[in-house]
Amino acid sequence: MTRAVVLLSGGLDSVTALAMASAGKREVLALGFVYGQRHVAELDCARIQAQRFGARQHEIVDLSHMGRLVAAATSLVAGGPHAVPKDRAQDVAVIPSTYVPARNTIFLAYALAWAEAADADEMWIGVNALDYSGYPDCRPDFMTAFAELVRLGTRRGVEGRPIAVVAPLQHLRKHEIIVRGLELGVDYADTLSCYDPIGSERALACGHCDSCQLRREGFALAGVADPTRYG
Amino acid sequence: MTRAVVLLSGGLDSVTALAMASAGKREVLALGFVYGQRHVAELDCARIQAQRFGARQHEIVDLSHMGRLVAAATSLVAGGPHAVPKDRAQDVAVIPSTYVPARNTIFLAYALAWAEAADADEMWIGVNALDYSGYPDCRPDFMTAFAELVRLGTRRGVEGRPIAVVAPLQHLRKHEIIVRGLELGVDYADTLSCYDPIGSERALACGHCDSCQLRREGFALAGVADPTRYG
Repeated sequence: MTRAVVLLSGGLDSVTALAMASAGKREVLALGFVYGQRHVAELDCARIQAQRFGARQHEIVDLSHMGRLVAAATSLVAGGPHAVPKDRAQDVAVIPSTYVPARNTIFLAYALAWAEAADADEMWIGVNALDYSGYPDCRPDFMTAFAELVRLGTRRGVEGRPIAVVAPLQHLRKHEIIVRGLELGVDYADTLSCYDPIGSERALACGHCDSCQLRREGFALAGVADPTRYG
Repeated sequence: MTRAVVLLSGGLDSVTALAMASAGKREVLALGFVYGQRHVAELDCARIQAQRFGARQHEIVDLSHMGRLVAAATSLVAGGPHAVPKDRAQDVAVIPSTYVPARNTIFLAYALAWAEAADADEMWIGVNALDYSGYPDCRPDFMTAFAELVRLGTRRGVEGRPIAVVAPLQHLRKHEIIVRGLELGVDYADTLSCYDPIGSERALACGHCDSCQLRREGFALAGVADPTRYG
C-alpha cells in the first residue's frame, strides 16, 4: 500500500487533495500547521476531514514562532500591521499582502522530513495555479524546483527513489476541483477557505477576501449549491 | 548595511560562518533550532557567540515536534532506537545514521521566511562538503537547488532580487575553516560539534563520533591547540 504525507489545512483545495489521495487506496499521514493564521477553525475542519477519509495519523505542528517572525510582512497572520484585502480585483500578476514568506517551502520541508522518516513514497499538496491568489510558491516551476531539492537533498533521493511531490490540483480550475471533490464524497460544508473569518468558535467566511471570491465563483461555475456559511 | 540571517547551531562551522558574516560589517540575525538533538549545550555556545559577534537578534525555534516525528529514522535525535556511531571510518559515499531527514531543508526554509520578512539580503549556512559526514543536504548541488527555490518561490525572487544563499565554508577543508575562524577571533572553546556529548550541563565532547573525529583532525592539521573539552 502506498503511503503518502498529505498537507491538510482544512481548506477546499487541501481537503480535495486528501479525498483524491484516499481514493487511491493510500495510507494517509495528514499534516497541518498553526502558524499564526487569523483563525484555527480551519484546523477543526482538517480534523473532521482527516477522520472522515480515514487518515492513519494526523499531526498539527505549532509554528506560531514562525508566524510571529513574519507577521510584519503579511496580512494573513494575526498581529501584523496589515488588514486582509477585500473585494480586490483578482490579478495573479500581483502578489497580494496575504502572501506569507516561504510558507509552502516550510510546509513542504516539514512534510518531506516526515515522509522520509515514515518511509512514505509521496507527499501531496493541494496547490493550484489557475484560480489562486498569485503566490509564487504555488506555481508549477516552484513545485518542480522542490522536487529537485528532494532528489538531491535526501537519503531516498540519493538512493534513486526520491519521494514524489504530488500536486494533483495544479492545473485544475476551482470549479473542476469542486466537481472532483463532490464525486469523491467531500462535504465542503466542513472546509474553511476564508483568509479572515468572522466569529470566534465556528468561524463564518467573510465572503470578500480573495479566497472567498475564488471559492464562491467556483461553486457558481460548478453549478452546485455553495454550502459555505458566510458572515 | 547588508542584513543577513545566519543559521547558528553553536558548532565549529556555523560559528565560523557567523564570524565571517560579522566581519563583513553585516547586521546579523542569528537563527537556531531545538529539534530533539542529544544536547542543547550547543545552543549555550550559540548564545555566547551571537552576543560576542554582535548579532542584532538571536532566535531559537522549537522544532521538537519535528524531532519526535523523525526520531525513528536518525541516531542524532534523542529517543530513537539508534546509537550514534563511534570511531567510524569516514566514508562520505555512505550516508550515516546521524543523517536527519530534511533537516537543512527545514532550517533553510525557516531562514528564508525570516530573511524575506525582515528584508534581509542574504541567508548564511555553514555547510561544508569536504570534511563532512556525507549528508546530501550539505552538498553544493543541494545548495544550488535551494537557491533556485528562493528565486522561484518568494516575492523577492519574483521581483528580481532574490535573497542570496551564502555557504562560505562549502569548499574549505576543516583545518582551513579553523584557521579562518582564528584569524577572525573565534574562541573555539565555546563551540560544541559533538553528536553525542557526555554530561548534562557543560557537555563534554565524546571524541569518537564523526563530528569529533573531523574536528580533532582539523585542529591537528591546522597545527593549533585543540580547545575542545573531551569526556
